[in-house]
Amino acid sequence: MAARGKVYLIGAGPGAQDLITLRGARLLAQADVVLHDALVTAEMLALCPQAIKIAVGKRCGKLSTAQQFINKQLVDNAAKHALVVRLKGGDPMLFGRADEELRALEAAGIEVEVVPGITTALAAAAATKQPLTQRGVARSVAFFTSSTAPGQPEQVTIPNTDTLVQYMGGREAAATAALLLAQGRAPATPVVVIENCSRPDQRILRLTLATLAHGLGAAHGPVLVMLGDALAQREQQADDAEAAPSSSSALKIA
Amino acid sequence: MAARGKVYLIGAGPGAQDLITLRGARLLAQADVVLHDALVTAEMLALCPQAIKIAVGKRCGKLSTAQQFINKQLVDNAAKHALVVRLKGGDPMLFGRADEELRALEAAGIEVEVVPGITTALAAAAATKQPLTQRGVARSVAFFTSSTAPGQPEQVTIPNTDTLVQYMGGREAAATAALLLAQGRAPATPVVVIENCSRPDQRILRLTLATLAHGLGAAHGPVLVMLGDALAQREQQADDAEAAPSSSSALKIA
Repeated sequence: MAARGKVYLIGAGPGAQDLITLRGARLLAQADVVLHDALVTAEMLALCPQAIKIAVGKRCGKLSTAQQFINKQLVDNAAKHALVVRLKGGDPMLFGRADEELRALEAAGIEVEVVPGITTALAAAAATKQPLTQRGVARSVAFFTSSTAPGQPEQVTIPNTDTLVQYMGGREAAATAALLLAQGRAPATPVVVIENCSRPDQRILRLTLATLAHGLGAAHGPVLVMLGDALAQREQQADDAEAAPSSSSALKIA
Repeated sequence: MAARGKVYLIGAGPGAQDLITLRGARLLAQADVVLHDALVTAEMLALCPQAIKIAVGKRCGKLSTAQQFINKQLVDNAAKHALVVRLKGGDPMLFGRADEELRALEAAGIEVEVVPGITTALAAAAATKQPLTQRGVARSVAFFTSSTAPGQPEQVTIPNTDTLVQYMGGREAAATAALLLAQGRAPATPVVVIENCSRPDQRILRLTLATLAHGLGAAHGPVLVMLGDALAQREQQADDAEAAPSSSSALKIA
């Protein structure tokens, strides 16, 4: 077998350049090739000026590159280069399709290592200063998505945890809210929606389960929906995003 | 009001020095004071040689510092210093007791900012190369703990998500497994247990829901229990930890 490179699946985090890990940043600076998602920001790619950069990302509603082709590119690049980085938004192991890429690399006998990233839910909790767990209020949190694989039935089970975080929740959030209300969750349950988390165009919207059931307007970037009693705004909490002039451009309720 | 410092609640991540974010590392290097948990590693504190370091952590079964006293120390230090860091293991917003500290700081009129960290579950998924979600297999994951506040009844609701991650799960994991079996989860459901994630003494154990119900032996560091069909080991997956000589010292099943 010919000498082969090593592939690192690296989580870029939510977007801000300084929210990648030290390990991730150091590997980017050494990479020969970086295969990155469409959602990885330009400032993040500035961490690897020396590398060949290949955009392979899939993006909702845009031209998508099939996963099988991404897998093939990873294997091909590992045959030609010593240090190959697969850079993914958020964390690779949470809604990151890492399973398919790990299998393809393992089948080809290529060494692989995973570097975790800040998943959007935790960046959103930090940006809004809203803990996802709270003593006596919330000690379980679920991260879920309603996105379905082709040919699979739509998911209807909503997790029964104290706090809920729906990834890629822009269009599906209204359906989630309706189901939760039908299950008896209080209409006043606090909801926090964040779009383009950690980026210059970050937008935050605070609403309730009852208003969320009416849907969210069009979003221009990735949307995360967090809900549960832990998301209640504290009495003396300053919400930077709401105080800023950009607050008027917060996601509109349809 | 006298000029006051700013407090940063920073997630240190699971322990390895290079798994903190660039933002966290830069703030540590500028900090006047760092108040840190007992679980924050010495190598992490090496990132702030210039700072006054104060250990304030609570640790299971060891001498604990009451949360109220930690809150007071944060407020007092912000009155004396410009840049105060509160450094927590993992992420501050997930089982990090951030709510109490945010309230105390806000009540004192002190500016505060939160910097997310790699939560142990994602570091564990990376270390074991085991994605927590998987297309067609697992699209929801819950992070939970059975730890109870004093005077509160023991939690019995186990989340109904595809993947489950129990934090501080060393002693409670057997009870969780028994409940899941009673609810009809398959006895062969894969389980991965990780102790001291990302540290030199990291240990990984693979078992099943049926064997987990018999309990885990004594652990010497923080234990995380992950379970669900997404945790199944892949056919060609090399498990570094199992291949290494240290595998014989894996957590013992009681």
